[in-house]
Amino acid sequence: MTGPLPSWSDGDARTSILDFVASVTTPERSTFVPPGERIATFDNDGTLWCEKPMYVQADFIFRKWKAMVAADPSLAAEQPFKALVEGDRAWLGAILDHVPELLKGLGVAFGGITADAFETEVRAFFTDARHPTLGTPYTSVGYRPMLELLAYLEANAFTVFICTGGGRDFVRVVGEEMYGIPRERVIGTGPTLEYRDGDLYRTTGVERPIDDGPGKPVHIWTRTGRKPLLAAGNSDGDIAMLETARFGLLVHHDDAVREFAYDGGAEQALAKATQRGWTVASMKDDFASIF
Amino acid sequence: MTGPLPSWSDGDARTSILDFVASVTTPERSTFVPPGERIATFDNDGTLWCEKPMYVQADFIFRKWKAMVAADPSLAAEQPFKALVEGDRAWLGAILDHVPELLKGLGVAFGGITADAFETEVRAFFTDARHPTLGTPYTSVGYRPMLELLAYLEANAFTVFICTGGGRDFVRVVGEEMYGIPRERVIGTGPTLEYRDGDLYRTTGVERPIDDGPGKPVHIWTRTGRKPLLAAGNSDGDIAMLETARFGLLVHHDDAVREFAYDGGAEQALAKATQRGWTVASMKDDFASIF
Repeated sequence: MTGPLPSWSDGDARTSILDFVASVTTPERSTFVPPGERIATFDNDGTLWCEKPMYVQADFIFRKWKAMVAADPSLAAEQPFKALVEGDRAWLGAILDHVPELLKGLGVAFGGITADAFETEVRAFFTDARHPTLGTPYTSVGYRPMLELLAYLEANAFTVFICTGGGRDFVRVVGEEMYGIPRERVIGTGPTLEYRDGDLYRTTGVERPIDDGPGKPVHIWTRTGRKPLLAAGNSDGDIAMLETARFGLLVHHDDAVREFAYDGGAEQALAKATQRGWTVASMKDDFASIF
Repeated sequence: MTGPLPSWSDGDARTSILDFVASVTTPERSTFVPPGERIATFDNDGTLWCEKPMYVQADFIFRKWKAMVAADPSLAAEQPFKALVEGDRAWLGAILDHVPELLKGLGVAFGGITADAFETEVRAFFTDARHPTLGTPYTSVGYRPMLELLAYLEANAFTVFICTGGGRDFVRVVGEEMYGIPRERVIGTGPTLEYRDGDLYRTTGVERPIDDGPGKPVHIWTRTGRKPLLAAGNSDGDIAMLETARFGLLVHHDDAVREFAYDGGAEQALAKATQRGWTVASMKDDFASIF
């Protein structure tokens, strides 16, 4: 394609995005929205970057747990370390069945350290780790068409926020480099923090609500004081956010050759997209290139 | 004064601000900070606008409670409505002794309404109400020297946030008009919100921590991912925020003629300012004009 969004194929998805942006940026139109009110919110895992074969943050956490077991083998007797050492993917994959153990493992790994110390660990991970099937640094697994969309919206005076169900302080470390989004515009799930002696310490608790499902519009309101003008997601956890937006975009993972094809966890979102007229971007048909 | 900050008198406070800003914006200096990392945070009550003879938000809440009693006189049998109807300033002023009753009164007044409906009430208040001694709209009770400082920092590529111990969703309504600060850069205490049926509803709960004392650096980190480069406050509730900043500014209310003179609630902050080398701005000596 020539013109805006060059990595998008010509088709309904690209056209509907361009039409929507024109509708809110053309002063003569009744649908015009002043620049300061143009808020866009993007889910991260599966919307801006690849979330398969496992969440990027899961790789980070698993590496940390493995390093902890290497330093103290007695940890391997207990979950979640046991499942990791034994390669028990079924146990590790059943996140919802093992929330207490997983949160405990996170608390042991990162509770009590400063926010700055956590950032140092995240930065080291992004320097060292490679995506298990693509072989590239994780900072290269952002979707090119979506990166173009972020830049296109910024160029049209939208203020873009990342709204991740995953860890806010994890994504913030690479948000500027990968997406051009500064850390104050990364919204997400975070630990409860404590201030003492001039510094900020992570606790073992998690801030409620988490930034997923109905928690997403709550996080967006508390951070921005607005509902999004445009929102983009890819899974059922994004439905509430998309319901509050004037324009909803759903990324559909249907390209088994160039990425991963899966509807799991997005069944309701795909059904809602039809009911509510959200724009569905097929990675197979609408993305001319992916990475 | 000519040059920047014209409503500041020539003196140590103005000089130290100008010197600090020069030190972080001059690329050749070892103290230089890149623009994207220049975060400034300002307390609101008593730092940016007048908080005497009562908090602006207290006037808003009291008017609402009075209107509720007028509509349903039976409310006057219970606190906090009883104290208001009877003009019991001692009871209303002893906030810390009456937290449960005051929170209950707030919940009855604003719990269960949408975030948008709350905003409509706040907007009506700012249109109708006048400051009890100055006689001007509350949107005129911002301190001119501090407004100049906000603009000066923005002109030097700082990103300025308001960090209020009071209600975030209250201050957001006038932040743009009064301070040029858009709503996504207003951090503050807020209610627990619930998402349902496409909209956001206030509950009777309050988000923890509140944005005061040790909660201020926590709020600032969760919203911005940074500690402030410059922070400004006026009371003991701002100490933790000031401790995390490279440059601390404390507004001292010592002008009984043009504003109000009081150290109550700022005793520890004033002592800390000396220990830690924070810049103290005397309203009497450093502010050439106030409103």
